[in-house]
Amino acid sequence: MGKQLSVAMLGYGIAGKAFARILTEKKEEIKRSTGYDVKVTAIVTGSRGTLMSAEGIDLLEATRQLEENGAFDASSPQYRNIAAMEVAETADYDVLLELTPLNIASGKPAIDHIRAALSRGKHVVSANKGPLAWAYRELRDLARKNGVCFFFETTVMAGTPVFNMAEYCLQYCKISKVEGIFNATTNYILKEMGKGLPMEQIVKAGREGGFMEADISMDVQGFDAAAKLTVLLNVLMDAGITPDQIDRTGIEGIAPADIEAAASRGNVIKLLCRGEVVDGRVVGKVAPGEVPQNDVFADPDLVAVVSLYTDLMGKLTMLQYGLETTQTGYGVFVDTMRVIDMLCGQGKQ
Amino acid sequence: MGKQLSVAMLGYGIAGKAFARILTEKKEEIKRSTGYDVKVTAIVTGSRGTLMSAEGIDLLEATRQLEENGAFDASSPQYRNIAAMEVAETADYDVLLELTPLNIASGKPAIDHIRAALSRGKHVVSANKGPLAWAYRELRDLARKNGVCFFFETTVMAGTPVFNMAEYCLQYCKISKVEGIFNATTNYILKEMGKGLPMEQIVKAGREGGFMEADISMDVQGFDAAAKLTVLLNVLMDAGITPDQIDRTGIEGIAPADIEAAASRGNVIKLLCRGEVVDGRVVGKVAPGEVPQNDVFADPDLVAVVSLYTDLMGKLTMLQYGLETTQTGYGVFVDTMRVIDMLCGQGKQ
Repeated sequence: MGKQLSVAMLGYGIAGKAFARILTEKKEEIKRSTGYDVKVTAIVTGSRGTLMSAEGIDLLEATRQLEENGAFDASSPQYRNIAAMEVAETADYDVLLELTPLNIASGKPAIDHIRAALSRGKHVVSANKGPLAWAYRELRDLARKNGVCFFFETTVMAGTPVFNMAEYCLQYCKISKVEGIFNATTNYILKEMGKGLPMEQIVKAGREGGFMEADISMDVQGFDAAAKLTVLLNVLMDAGITPDQIDRTGIEGIAPADIEAAASRGNVIKLLCRGEVVDGRVVGKVAPGEVPQNDVFADPDLVAVVSLYTDLMGKLTMLQYGLETTQTGYGVFVDTMRVIDMLCGQGKQ
Repeated sequence: MGKQLSVAMLGYGIAGKAFARILTEKKEEIKRSTGYDVKVTAIVTGSRGTLMSAEGIDLLEATRQLEENGAFDASSPQYRNIAAMEVAETADYDVLLELTPLNIASGKPAIDHIRAALSRGKHVVSANKGPLAWAYRELRDLARKNGVCFFFETTVMAGTPVFNMAEYCLQYCKISKVEGIFNATTNYILKEMGKGLPMEQIVKAGREGGFMEADISMDVQGFDAAAKLTVLLNVLMDAGITPDQIDRTGIEGIAPADIEAAASRGNVIKLLCRGEVVDGRVVGKVAPGEVPQNDVFADPDLVAVVSLYTDLMGKLTMLQYGLETTQTGYGVFVDTMRVIDMLCGQGKQ
């Protein structure tokens, strides 16, 4: 009893706030079941200030400040002018949550944050897929060398437990192929296009409805899907690749007429991702492709799907339906709880 | 190093032989990665004899004897005339694998085997769903009281990791509803009926093809699906129910004309299982029902499917495609490895 786990959060966007909500709700349950008091001792944002407190930050109050004032309260005694990298390198914490915005072209500076934390023997949970896509092997090996945790459930398919499931349940299987649909935005656009709407109109409505971001070029050009496929192949098949090695075609060239033509063949068009071993090397491809209307991948309600092809368990498919912010937060939360599980195991020594 | 894990197998049918194959193949890998030498020290069958050896039984040789002679070699020095219950109660082992044939009406005598092992502080892995359907709470509580493992991944959806996934990845979620298709035989019959074939003809062909058992009444009447649903509800929602409490309708009343009528409405007929909380009580139902042709549950290739409705992770669906014997063995194998993981955690004390 009386054990403490201090968490430093780099970034406090959708995933961060959802994590904060879940942690606040489950704090007492965690204390009861594990003996650990989990405290967030730092919240760093890019332009909205930083809060730090060894006693722990009131997370709901932090969220309220951001939502009401667009920034943390600079007059608070917990307010600091300190950037993410300095926190990663110098602050006192047990677990670093890497939740900063994605830099899909290089994974920086998130890679540096994670490297700094792992080098100091700190555990890392990343909701940022950049570091996994650009530097997975290096960071994995650094974590192993220093005997610390490096988890990242939420980077692909939000909180859908593809990585933890594979690690816990398929660890004696060899995964030889990965297929899936990983980008929710293009999946939605293609579905709406099936109603005859042109892409511009769908995107306009999506932005007005608040569920599509201003810049969706990373989605439409297939970069987001390629980065996620890279992460899956690096983690599940030890591919050691980067997103620029994925054979990538976006959905810019798809028009309602193409969808209509596919429908006349009984098919729908999806932005398909696939990775498999070709001549001893893991090769990944993202491109629009047709699937039969009654195929699982064609389910109009699904947000994302992954199929893993294994030697001992055959083909296993997981479907994600919801796209609630809670799911993103839950993945980060579960990873943080895995750190505690690991510490509890060590604590028996 | 030099650690031993001795395994007693009650039953040596499809799951047992598949487990034996995987264990033989992975034995050295397990020793390297965990330090444990896993030995099977007893194989008990109902009518084909029993082998016991403190040094470990040659599993491939045991399989060969059964396949070539229909029984273990009675002249072998390892041969014994000893029944499952006596082995469970008196033999020297660390893990009991309960792999005896299912008694769907009571779960006996498998419940007694498991109770005997858990009472002696032995770990148990069950591929037999009877005990989970009829006595889950008692056995779970007994295992907890004695600080031993009680795992059963393969009881529902073969080795598809529904239980281990839920335990490791959804442990902080509340599951409020379970839906699925769990019986592969009826799923196949309904699919074939869609081609206009009457049930008798499908079953006859299935038997001749060797992929349908002589007595499929438990499948057709919905008992098998009801037992699996019971296990899921007991484990995932702590329902504390038995199969006789499931509202059950089989597929005996379904004829090709019904399937044709459903098709005219754009639907297919499936043997659907569902459990949810009604007035504070978990209520389960198994019955034929219609699903839209483009619904995931209608996928003609799937063998089984489960959807879990959670508070924090939304709806999560897992699909099983293959029905290889290896999958059944893999579930037992993974559960056995979880016992070793647990022992490795304790070993750090």
